[in-house]
Formats: sequence, C-alpha cells, structure tokens
Amino acid sequence: MPVDTIKWIGGTDGCARIIDQTLLPNEYKLIDLCDIKTMWQAIKVLQIRGAPVLAIAAAYGVVLGLREVKDSDSAEALKKQVNKSCEYIAGSRPTAVNLFWGLDRMKKAAEACTAKTAGQMKEHLLTEAHAIRDEDARTSRAIGDNGAPLIKDGFSIITHCNAGGLVTADYGTALAVMFTAHQQGRRFQVYADETRPLWQGARLTAWELVQAGIDVTVICDNMAGSLMNQGKIDLVITGADRIARNGDTANKIGTYSLAVLAHVHNVPFYIAAPISTFDPKLADGSGIPIEQRDRAEVSDPFGHRIAPVQAKVYNPAFDVTLYRYIAGFITECGIIRPPYKETISRLLASVG
Amino acid sequence: MPVDTIKWIGGTDGCARIIDQTLLPNEYKLIDLCDIKTMWQAIKVLQIRGAPVLAIAAAYGVVLGLREVKDSDSAEALKKQVNKSCEYIAGSRPTAVNLFWGLDRMKKAAEACTAKTAGQMKEHLLTEAHAIRDEDARTSRAIGDNGAPLIKDGFSIITHCNAGGLVTADYGTALAVMFTAHQQGRRFQVYADETRPLWQGARLTAWELVQAGIDVTVICDNMAGSLMNQGKIDLVITGADRIARNGDTANKIGTYSLAVLAHVHNVPFYIAAPISTFDPKLADGSGIPIEQRDRAEVSDPFGHRIAPVQAKVYNPAFDVTLYRYIAGFITECGIIRPPYKETISRLLASVG
Repeated sequence: MPVDTIKWIGGTDGCARIIDQTLLPNEYKLIDLCDIKTMWQAIKVLQIRGAPVLAIAAAYGVVLGLREVKDSDSAEALKKQVNKSCEYIAGSRPTAVNLFWGLDRMKKAAEACTAKTAGQMKEHLLTEAHAIRDEDARTSRAIGDNGAPLIKDGFSIITHCNAGGLVTADYGTALAVMFTAHQQGRRFQVYADETRPLWQGARLTAWELVQAGIDVTVICDNMAGSLMNQGKIDLVITGADRIARNGDTANKIGTYSLAVLAHVHNVPFYIAAPISTFDPKLADGSGIPIEQRDRAEVSDPFGHRIAPVQAKVYNPAFDVTLYRYIAGFITECGIIRPPYKETISRLLASVG
Repeated sequence: MPVDTIKWIGGTDGCARIIDQTLLPNEYKLIDLCDIKTMWQAIKVLQIRGAPVLAIAAAYGVVLGLREVKDSDSAEALKKQVNKSCEYIAGSRPTAVNLFWGLDRMKKAAEACTAKTAGQMKEHLLTEAHAIRDEDARTSRAIGDNGAPLIKDGFSIITHCNAGGLVTADYGTALAVMFTAHQQGRRFQVYADETRPLWQGARLTAWELVQAGIDVTVICDNMAGSLMNQGKIDLVITGADRIARNGDTANKIGTYSLAVLAHVHNVPFYIAAPISTFDPKLADGSGIPIEQRDRAEVSDPFGHRIAPVQAKVYNPAFDVTLYRYIAGFITECGIIRPPYKETISRLLASVG
C-alpha cells in the first residue's frame, strides 16, 4: 500500500519523517530524524529497512549531514562534507546495493553542481534527494504493472520478508505486483512467511496486505515446503537486496531455501526489484557481503531467552539465491528472463 | 542426555513425575501428575512431548485413570475403566502413533491378565507401564549404537525439533546417535533448527547438547538451506512421529522442507525412531492425521503480537516427508534402507 514510509518535512534544514517499522503492526508511529546520526541509527536498527527505500534514506541522510556546514561557506567545503556523510552512512548496513547507489547519486550531484555557496548547493542536493524519492515511487508502480499479469484468478502466492510499500516511497516491489493485480480485480490469496528472526513478514507484509484487503495467511518459514507439496502454491515473489550480473540474488535469509523448494515443486519463483538493485560490479553472488547480526535477535525474541547462553548462534541477515532457481526479475523495464548473463547485461547497458 | 523425562513415584496409587518441558531451558522444574486429566493436559500443552515418550506417558496415564476403581472391585470393572482411560488419552494428540501403541499395549495387558480383583490387575498394569519405560530406555541406547557410525570426525550435522533424552526414557532417538558418537570420542558440531513455532530445537535440543558438552549452534529454520549451499553440512538426522509402510514419515513441521533441501544438496537425511513409530496400518503418508494447533503459537509468541489480528494463521504441528528423500531409518534393530516397501515389511514381520 502507498504509505508514507519516508518523506521530508521543511527545507534544507528540515527533517526526514519515517514510520518506525519496529513498532508495526501494533503501533503506527511517525518519527522525525533531524541529524545524520539518528538516520544512521534508524537504518541500523531497522526502523527503516528494505532495499529500495534505503537509497532514499541514504540521500536524505546525506542532506542531514550538511547542516554542520554554514550556508555562507564555500561549495568546496560542502562537497567535502558530502563525501564525509556518504562514508558515514555507508557503514550502516553492508548488503543492500541501493543504499550505495543512493549515495553515489548524491556524490555525483555534488560534483556536477556549479553552485558557488554551500547554501545553494544544499538546495541542489535536497532537490536531488527528492528526485530519488519521486523516481522510486514511479518505479514501484511500473514494477506493479509489469508483474501483475503473472497473478491469475484463484492463485495462492508465497512471499518472504517484506517487499511492500514500506520498502519504497510507494507501492513496493513484490507487493506492488499484488496490489496492482488486486486493483485490476483479480482475487488471490497470499501466504506470508513470518521471516525469522525479525518477523518482517508477519509484522509488515501481513499488515500491508490486510490494509489493502488482500486475503493473507501468516505461516512459519518452515511450512512453505509442505504447502507446495500439497499443491497449494502457484507462485512465489520476493524482493531483493543485491543482484549480480549473472542473476545471483542476495535477499533476506530464507529466500534461498524458498527458491530451492519452489524449483523442486515446479512453482515459478520471481524476484521483484528496481534496476538500482543490480550491481554491475559483481559477476556473481560469491562477492556479495553478508551482514551478520546480533545473536539476541535469534536467542532472545522480545527479551525472552529461548536458547541456553552456552549455545552458539548463527544469524546472517541475508542469503544468496542462485540464478538457476529464479524464473525472472520483475523490474520497472519489464520482466528479465534467462539467459541472465545476456539479458542483465543488455538491461544495464540500456539504462547506462 | 539421560534425563528423568518421566518416572513413576510410589505404587499403584502413585504419580508420574515429569520435567515441565515448556519451562526449559530457563527453568528445570519437576511436576507430579497424579490424575489422568492432569496427564491429558500435560500431553496437550507439551509439558511432555516427543513421540516415543508419549507411549510411556499414555501407559502411566492409563494407570492414573484406574484409581477411580476400588481395589476390591472386580477385574471386569477395571478392564472397563482401562478402555475408558485409553479412549480419553487417545484424544490428547492425534499424530504420534507411539501414543496409540502404548495404549494398545495396556489394553492387551489388561485383556491377557487373569487376576481376579481390580487391585491385583492394577499391580499388573503398573508393571506393564514400567516395562514399556524400561524397553524404551534400552531401545534408545540401541538406536544410538546403530546410528553412531554415521557420524565421522569433523562432521557438521543439522537436526530439527527435539529428539533427545527428553522424548524417551533415556538417550532419545536422533540425539542418541550424537550422544553415542560423542562418547565414542568423535568430535563434530550440531546446528539446531530453532523449530518454530514452539522452539523445541532452541529450547530443548540446544539445552541437551550443551549438557552433553557437544558443540551446538542455534539457527532459524530458514537458514539450513543456505548452510547446505555453502557446503557446511554433512548429515541431517531427525526423529519421527509416525512412519507409513512405504517410508513416508510424519515429523515436526519443517522436516519435509529440510529433507528436500538435503536431497538437493546431496546431504544424507536420516530418521532415528523406535520400531513402535512404524504404523503397519498405513500404506503411505497420505493417511496420517495432522494436528492443527492454536493460531496464537504463531501470531503471539510469549504473548507479544507479531501479526495483525485480521490476518489468518496456518499452524500444522507436523508435515509428511516423502520416503524418497530419506536415506535410512535408524532403529533399535539396525538401519533400514530402501526399497522401503520391502525392508519395512520385513522389519515389521520380524517383530510380529
């Protein structure tokens, strides 16, 4: 659903207003992030999360980092601050390439800017951040339009984690496809993987689908295979955090298992993602850095200890799904199909 | 580990003493069950759980049901009460066949008994329940001995749910294999699937392995496939709740997905279970009743709501793993291998 996942309040000395996603579905709370450290922290603890929107959060984060420079200072001083801010934000989360893509856009905008004063350049960079946000909204609608024909009347669909309105400025990615098909009048049901350890599927995807009036059933991640074996699943769609040139795709931990299970049961498995998710620098998935997160997310849900302290915990935030399990990538420029080395190269060349 | 999962305190008017497994690993608490309703409830809410031990719990439950009959009453009156108690206990949980196997043993013992008074027959039935418990302890040691050679030095093993000392009178089933290999001096590590929704893997398996000094790492259920794809897993062993004549196996929800993932990654997947888990009445897995449990187990872990109330929840306690994904069944009579229709028939014929 189009929700105000992130917007900007005020001018160059304004704040980013976000939904605190850690409180959903029990509380809908907007919070204002008015300095770069608060933005860094919000990204780190997942108050704002989901690959595409991290480009916007990163861009606004850079703008927040500029207020240390006086408007009357030189443009050169501001450019230095842009680089410093980009470096700082880049350290928040390592896997989603969209975050780095957003930072690159801001750096390029600063370099290309011919303004004389820091104040003028701040205006220019805020405009660029707004542009990233507006493009993202258009992109998510296009992903929805391109993917919707995949959903037929009566389908049952599994999705993993949350790739909805909460991960973009508008309709989302995987859920954009469902919102659009629903608006076009098709009736279908969705099984939302709860997505341990942080329950983005149960908390966020189920919440978004309920808001949209789409039939949603929450399942534990370990139930998807059994549903497929019962012939109950027609389609799987997830989002992505980073896609290599051969189609290998990093996404929330559990996506790989889901894709293998879909493959074995002849259920088509699609990734919905904006083109900014493709990383032209990566030949395959082996080079994607995987963020390791705190053990307490697994061992102490809601502060309730479920595992003995002497037991170790493994908690990667993502895994890499091999290209051969992916039926297609639903992008704003249409659905990209195998052979990926060719089709992804063509796609990346076409967008420069 | 051999823990006092269930034992009997006193004579025919005694009580069953169990570990309250819902409190582990944070609290080790023994509770006394002194009437049949309390036993039914303990089975229902999983204070005692795990297929093999349910045979013992059922047998002691029947004994608890006999105290309504006076010792001076007729043996006939007591036999009626045995049947009534069996019917009542049978309604507690529908999937584990061992529970019904334990009830059948008690009914047959009552039928075969030539005692004249209810009091004498109570003694006989308590002795039979003790015998079930003692046989179970020997069985779990034999499963350990038979399976241990599968574990080589340096192996990494995944297990799902809890099939350890807590599910039998002694060493367990899947974990018996690990305890025995560990005692024989092999060094290996175990990844314990946390096993949503009730975390038996994180809570119980990790606790048992820590007690035994075995290297254990807790993972979310959705991480197993990614570990296999990284080449980090050599072996998977789980327990079972019911096995059909063709080898199809009901076990904790998530076992099917794990078995498919193991198959795709060429990791051998074994089931460890006593022969009482095989159901000679079932040709294949399609006839196994699957217990559906309360939505709150999924949607409200520890009373903390993670899914909107308008979302539906699917919460089957078990799934059925197809025989073709199972490399072998580790039983007290050795490892049973394909073709299962033949080898399982021979096994069942040999034990009568």
